[in-house]
Amino acid sequence: MDLTSFKSIVDQYETIFFDAFGVLKNHRGLIPGIKKTFDYLEENGINYYILTNDASRGPRELAQSYQEAGLEHITIDKIVSSGMLAREYLKYKVKAGTIAYLGTFRSAHYIETLGLDTLSIAHMDLSQADEISALVFLDDEGFDWSEDLNKAVNLLRFTNIPAIVSNTDLSYPMDQKQVAIAVGGIADMVESVVGKRFIRFGKPDAQMFIFAHEHSVALGGTPDKNKILMVGDTLTTDIIGGNKFGLDTMLVMTGNTLPKHSAMMIETSGIIPTYVCENAVIE
Amino acid sequence: MDLTSFKSIVDQYETIFFDAFGVLKNHRGLIPGIKKTFDYLEENGINYYILTNDASRGPRELAQSYQEAGLEHITIDKIVSSGMLAREYLKYKVKAGTIAYLGTFRSAHYIETLGLDTLSIAHMDLSQADEISALVFLDDEGFDWSEDLNKAVNLLRFTNIPAIVSNTDLSYPMDQKQVAIAVGGIADMVESVVGKRFIRFGKPDAQMFIFAHEHSVALGGTPDKNKILMVGDTLTTDIIGGNKFGLDTMLVMTGNTLPKHSAMMIETSGIIPTYVCENAVIE
Amino acid sequence: MDLTSFKSIVDQYETIFFDAFGVLKNHRGLIPGIKKTFDYLEENGINYYILTNDASRGPRELAQSYQEAGLEHITIDKIVSSGMLAREYLKYKVKAGTIAYLGTFRSAHYIETLGLDTLSIAHMDLSQADEISALVFLDDEGFDWSEDLNKAVNLLRFTNIPAIVSNTDLSYPMDQKQVAIAVGGIADMVESVVGKRFIRFGKPDAQMFIFAHEHSVALGGTPDKNKILMVGDTLTTDIIGGNKFGLDTMLVMTGNTLPKHSAMMIETSGIIPTYVCENAVIE
Amino acid sequence: MDLTSFKSIVDQYETIFFDAFGVLKNHRGLIPGIKKTFDYLEENGINYYILTNDASRGPRELAQSYQEAGLEHITIDKIVSSGMLAREYLKYKVKAGTIAYLGTFRSAHYIETLGLDTLSIAHMDLSQADEISALVFLDDEGFDWSEDLNKAVNLLRFTNIPAIVSNTDLSYPMDQKQVAIAVGGIADMVESVVGKRFIRFGKPDAQMFIFAHEHSVALGGTPDKNKILMVGDTLTTDIIGGNKFGLDTMLVMTGNTLPKHSAMMIETSGIIPTYVCENAVIE
Repeated sequence: MDLTSFKSIVDQYETIFFDAFGVLKNHRGLIPGIKKTFDYLEENGINYYILTNDASRGPRELAQSYQEAGLEHITIDKIVSSGMLAREYLKYKVKAGTIAYLGTFRSAHYIETLGLDTLSIAHMDLSQADEISALVFLDDEGFDWSEDLNKAVNLLRFTNIPAIVSNTDLSYPMDQKQVAIAVGGIADMVESVVGKRFIRFGKPDAQMFIFAHEHSVALGGTPDKNKILMVGDTLTTDIIGGNKFGLDTMLVMTGNTLPKHSAMMIETSGIIPTYVCENAVIE
Repeated sequence: MDLTSFKSIVDQYETIFFDAFGVLKNHRGLIPGIKKTFDYLEENGINYYILTNDASRGPRELAQSYQEAGLEHITIDKIVSSGMLAREYLKYKVKAGTIAYLGTFRSAHYIETLGLDTLSIAHMDLSQADEISALVFLDDEGFDWSEDLNKAVNLLRFTNIPAIVSNTDLSYPMDQKQVAIAVGGIADMVESVVGKRFIRFGKPDAQMFIFAHEHSVALGGTPDKNKILMVGDTLTTDIIGGNKFGLDTMLVMTGNTLPKHSAMMIETSGIIPTYVCENAVIE
Repeated sequence: MDLTSFKSIVDQYETIFFDAFGVLKNHRGLIPGIKKTFDYLEENGINYYILTNDASRGPRELAQSYQEAGLEHITIDKIVSSGMLAREYLKYKVKAGTIAYLGTFRSAHYIETLGLDTLSIAHMDLSQADEISALVFLDDEGFDWSEDLNKAVNLLRFTNIPAIVSNTDLSYPMDQKQVAIAVGGIADMVESVVGKRFIRFGKPDAQMFIFAHEHSVALGGTPDKNKILMVGDTLTTDIIGGNKFGLDTMLVMTGNTLPKHSAMMIETSGIIPTYVCENAVIE
Repeated sequence: MDLTSFKSIVDQYETIFFDAFGVLKNHRGLIPGIKKTFDYLEENGINYYILTNDASRGPRELAQSYQEAGLEHITIDKIVSSGMLAREYLKYKVKAGTIAYLGTFRSAHYIETLGLDTLSIAHMDLSQADEISALVFLDDEGFDWSEDLNKAVNLLRFTNIPAIVSNTDLSYPMDQKQVAIAVGGIADMVESVVGKRFIRFGKPDAQMFIFAHEHSVALGGTPDKNKILMVGDTLTTDIIGGNKFGLDTMLVMTGNTLPKHSAMMIETSGIIPTYVCENAVIE
């Protein structure tokens, strides 16, 4: 597979959407040299946003984590997370009652800023089922999987409330070798057992890209999709989602897709990036 | 199931999104009395749009068909179809080569207004595969299912091009009793045989609602989702899609959902409309 | 829906296959009067077997539980469980190494009678991955869901070993209102996260019925499928599985299928029992 | 991937099950040298059977086609086809009425030997729906896909009858480059549109292997699964099905699985053959 360099194409675009894990960072920390990419974008007046399937914390905490890692340009306004879409849904569709959630207190905090009451499934009793107006899957931590997933199943059987999945990923990397089951995988199991349709937010769903696009345009970015590039490491989320929304797309080899497999994966999946690059580093 | 009347709720909204089949019309023609609904909306300054999974013809022809049936208010600017989304995708993502299509000449005409060359699969020879830059599923008519679907399968095996499905419906009603397989069902079969990922447009996908919303706002409609109501007859397309986009939703009994089944279908699916009404007629 | 009485049809058959939960017992204990059914079958020389998706214990313990509940006719030779099929698979296909399992010690005991070493995932360390020759899903208890399911995911990523699911059920009833996630639901999640194909045993798979049939014939029962009746409470496991194997089938209303829903469920699923009866009691 | 030679392992087995397409023949005709394999098996008293997902004709015609190609040892008793399982189902479960079918007259002939009336969908009128007692998918030829598949959809909506799929394959090879949609792919589309559960026969389903096993044992073959080898070219049908039934399995490179992809396909699918061989030729 012929690889392009990011440098050779970036100047054609006014806005860049970046996936986070596998593009900007991996289990070891920042991708070496990635800081220079953001220096270049800043110097050349190219807009950028981070599109991440993450609801374990709010955009402020996500931005802080990048800044602490050394990417000081990544401020809260640069963050577009699937958790923000879930919060938006709750804002429009759930106006009373208590939101039950699976996740940590930290993950629920961002929901609470809507002024809604929240209650961890870990602290909920099924006798309270009538008070619950929605169930949100936020994070894979903060509850007992056996006890609390069974409680979630029965909550959804006893009451007819929407179930919202704020991160569609099935797994996430723990270290160089191991992965962990993500809240999206857990939610799939609960949905299958309960038999009701859940509402999901996150790439590759178009809503993620539209939310980012509206956010970017509201902050003065270009509305012209031909001037926006989506950069990601995963064909089935970043690339197909970007393509469907009408963006040019760039696949990098620093995450889920290995250089030796990329040509075959593009061929067998039929998901075709505009460019294939080794990484998103601009040196 | 307690039914509300559309009249009692419509004044709370500034914009109404209507599904077409099962809400405005059925196999016999217009739903009796539906013309009065549009008179009311016009008189009261309430905006409205028709959201339809249809790529068998362009928005101009769709609008004409409503006008010929007696709904003269429904002009081209009131139409939002899945075919319009497919055309938008092609505009941004396919800039050269020939678009092969499954459908009638009429369905392809709307694609050709982009200035792209089109070629019916019925007239394509596999020796031309290298010239084809995308395959679009437009309509279930206009080709020989046996010969041309096999040709489509092999086209997608020989070349790595995007396949676009411009209507996700599996079937559509023919008359009071019979249905016909729709192009969405055909596309599912081809995708399954080929094993590559297709790109789909149409309800319940969020992109359809966002496209309608942007279109409405561009024409002066409210951007406030709390002021928009989605009216449909199908839980799994109109209602779940409207809910996910953050709209209030209204299920009517004039199409796919029978009054005697509606409560059970809402309960077992977990797809919850804001209102359940007998029909969308305002008398 | 017209209901038949079991009594009026039972004499046409030489062998009866019974599902367990929802037919012989429910969360409260035995279905009232069910003991008389087995008295009748014994008196009239009609063979019977219990076909159950259960791998939480061996056939001896399953039989004991029926006897303790008052069905003293149900001896070990009357039991056909999905756990027996999983054990059969391991006997033929895994001849060395250690079998890792998800479940209680009790559930593993039946595997150990093959002479194979077993190791609970709860006690396994991923550094031992190379010694493991298969992973078996036996029961939803006996391990920490969060820690040990993640361990199972990584075991299957590090080594290429078969994963065997010994009970395909997604959930099981806990009491009159609550259900619990069954090991089949857990296995689906792990399979989806890992992306490899698991091997499943249990109704509705034909192998369960064939195993029961061979077992019955070996003990002197009729080989003639026309003389065998499958009795169950679930269309999607008992009835479709029995039908596919060529048996007559009888749906009862003492479990998953409510009388008021049965006609609609048969119509919408297209899964057609030979008979519909209130229960399997012969008075 | 280290390849074994079939010769070096065949003597360990008393019975060999062969897949047909990709193992014994391909689009060009017999695999070169395959005749010697059957000479060897005959000389050494090793039993063999052909397990094929094919319902386009009966076992007699299938055997004839092998004999005409030069494999004169392959007589009718050596054939086990998915069509034979579908016929067996009809024998036990459909005792009256007319069997409607999708396929050629030749494919229906084998069903008619049961003494049942058959009627091609191409000649059926929906006004006859009440006389139809089952619908069987036999072959992708012999009917008009557009007209007759829509007729099949409405037949299954008007009446609640079983739908039987006698070949689960999605496609089959036409020549060195092209494939054609098989009746299994067509049936999936109709099932999805109708929303009812169909009954499927063919590999990888266990019933195919059990039928072959019973057939082999009835003709004097070994009942010991450890003495039976399944030979196939497809991991997802031949190998996973053989493994699940408890047989040793051998993957060959003369069909669907290319040598350069085999190791990766085994690794990513988790479907593990006992042996990997270049071909099934014994020289």
